[in-house]
Amino acid sequence: MKRLINDPYDVVEEMLEGYVKAHEKYVKLLEHDGRVVVSKKAPVENKVGIIIGGGSGHEPLFLGYVGEGFADAAVIGNINTSPSPEPCYNAVKAVDAGKGCLYMYGNYAGDVLNFDMGAEMAAMDGIRVETVLITDDVVSSTEIKDRRGVAGDFYVFKIAAAKAALGADLDEVKAAAEKANDNTRSMGVALSSATLPSTGKPIFEMGEEDMEIGMGIHGEPGVRRGKIEPADKVIDQIMEHILPDLPYASGDEVSVLINSLGATPILDLHICYRRVAQILEEKGIKVHKSFVGPFATSMDMAGMSVTLMKLDEELKQLLDYPCDTPYFVQK
Amino acid sequence: MKRLINDPYDVVEEMLEGYVKAHEKYVKLLEHDGRVVVSKKAPVENKVGIIIGGGSGHEPLFLGYVGEGFADAAVIGNINTSPSPEPCYNAVKAVDAGKGCLYMYGNYAGDVLNFDMGAEMAAMDGIRVETVLITDDVVSSTEIKDRRGVAGDFYVFKIAAAKAALGADLDEVKAAAEKANDNTRSMGVALSSATLPSTGKPIFEMGEEDMEIGMGIHGEPGVRRGKIEPADKVIDQIMEHILPDLPYASGDEVSVLINSLGATPILDLHICYRRVAQILEEKGIKVHKSFVGPFATSMDMAGMSVTLMKLDEELKQLLDYPCDTPYFVQK
Repeated sequence: MKRLINDPYDVVEEMLEGYVKAHEKYVKLLEHDGRVVVSKKAPVENKVGIIIGGGSGHEPLFLGYVGEGFADAAVIGNINTSPSPEPCYNAVKAVDAGKGCLYMYGNYAGDVLNFDMGAEMAAMDGIRVETVLITDDVVSSTEIKDRRGVAGDFYVFKIAAAKAALGADLDEVKAAAEKANDNTRSMGVALSSATLPSTGKPIFEMGEEDMEIGMGIHGEPGVRRGKIEPADKVIDQIMEHILPDLPYASGDEVSVLINSLGATPILDLHICYRRVAQILEEKGIKVHKSFVGPFATSMDMAGMSVTLMKLDEELKQLLDYPCDTPYFVQK
Repeated sequence: MKRLINDPYDVVEEMLEGYVKAHEKYVKLLEHDGRVVVSKKAPVENKVGIIIGGGSGHEPLFLGYVGEGFADAAVIGNINTSPSPEPCYNAVKAVDAGKGCLYMYGNYAGDVLNFDMGAEMAAMDGIRVETVLITDDVVSSTEIKDRRGVAGDFYVFKIAAAKAALGADLDEVKAAAEKANDNTRSMGVALSSATLPSTGKPIFEMGEEDMEIGMGIHGEPGVRRGKIEPADKVIDQIMEHILPDLPYASGDEVSVLINSLGATPILDLHICYRRVAQILEEKGIKVHKSFVGPFATSMDMAGMSVTLMKLDEELKQLLDYPCDTPYFVQK
């Protein structure tokens, strides 16, 4: 795989410069901190501040979801690397409207450390910051609290942001995010590595005919590596892990997200969706709304993931709540 | 590159089955013709029918833009192959509301032949169908009428669809589409081939370190093949072809579309956007609105294209007109 970049050590700065230019009606960089993408509407009066973030290389995650009715700010790390504590803190200062802020990000050690330090700095200024970690990747641990966050980030961010937009207080927004995370499960398959800009080489090796089921978005080991199989067989194996984990059961209503890891065509994603829909129908699980496309990528990695979020009336209302951002618009 | 598919000869049917399930609030397949994706709102009273289409493998083009305020139907061909005349005709029968229909598609011989036959069949039913061919690919011919259509399709479809949604008659909608096409220019760069589902092999060979500037979305020859260069140098060469072609000049206002051919990350696209914005600023060309992402792909091909559309007040109003489709929502 090949990349269209300049100096590999400038990729994040140049991406951000291009991003805020391309989407200048929505967002800007903080003047004193070029690693914080802020909504032009923030701070929003009488609203809990929604702050998301993590390493770069997963676009449109995280910065693509900053805008009206969604996140107020995204804190940007280097490729596959947590942001430092200062931008986490600066994001709070930029978006807090007096009701406190919620940090949300995938459960990775570096992110936890640095966002926690950002929250401590904010606390010294008297600003309350709560945190919800996303832990949707079913194969990353048997213990839910130790699981990584992958494409389920999208759902948890969306739910909490809608709750905040409706005027809820910080405890209520945090509870909505936790409820969304509790009801969300994901699993993916990688068909190739991503290309690391700094080396121009794959992050890991993968045979020409191989795939790895359950691999994480940074190349973390999955459950099984083997010869690439037909899409339906791959989806069957993924669904066999996801469905019993919550469990999702007959009579449930869910939202489905089929996420591209980067290089897998939208055509293939719909062939995968077809099989997911067949399985859900067989199981008596109803689909409320579906999303298919690149939501949480790993640069040019080939592969995809399936995410299910089980819905009740509240989650449905929050999922459907309108928003307007560069990478997700809903009427 | 690897694909997530089942039987390679079923990819289009399975994709369509998944597509109409995933986006069932927006679209359906015609009961008697599984190659026509129709908006659930169509036919729309007192509106010219907007019909787009072409070969598969360019998703979200064409079916992704069927919905409210955009196209009423998309006619679906096999991979890189024109749809047959019957679905072109069936689309007209499905969406015509008595004001006639406009066919729009990229200028490829097979599409012209088959859509023209569809229009003749509709004429025998007394339904007037006009056609606008998109010809935005600057390097595909010196004669504009012989040029191919690439990502500029998106702009021409959007403009004509908004004009139709505002209640214009067929001549006015056609004139708006022609005006959009006249003001739109594109050029791309390919870094790899796409993988053809039927063979599992690349459509063409490309060296591990090579790129081809100006290559078409089906692998048509470009202007120069050579070693891959930094993003800024690639963009400079593309802009040197696009800018003088219309020409785009100081004082002009444009919309910019940075399109992924499939496997190029959103991160890289914004590095490319950064350079495009710098060049436009140097030239005194103002940007009204920008789009960055996969709009007209070639499955898993790595690479991107730049499209500019020069805007006047009418085009700005039509570009900004709200719409709601699975792959493009605008408030």
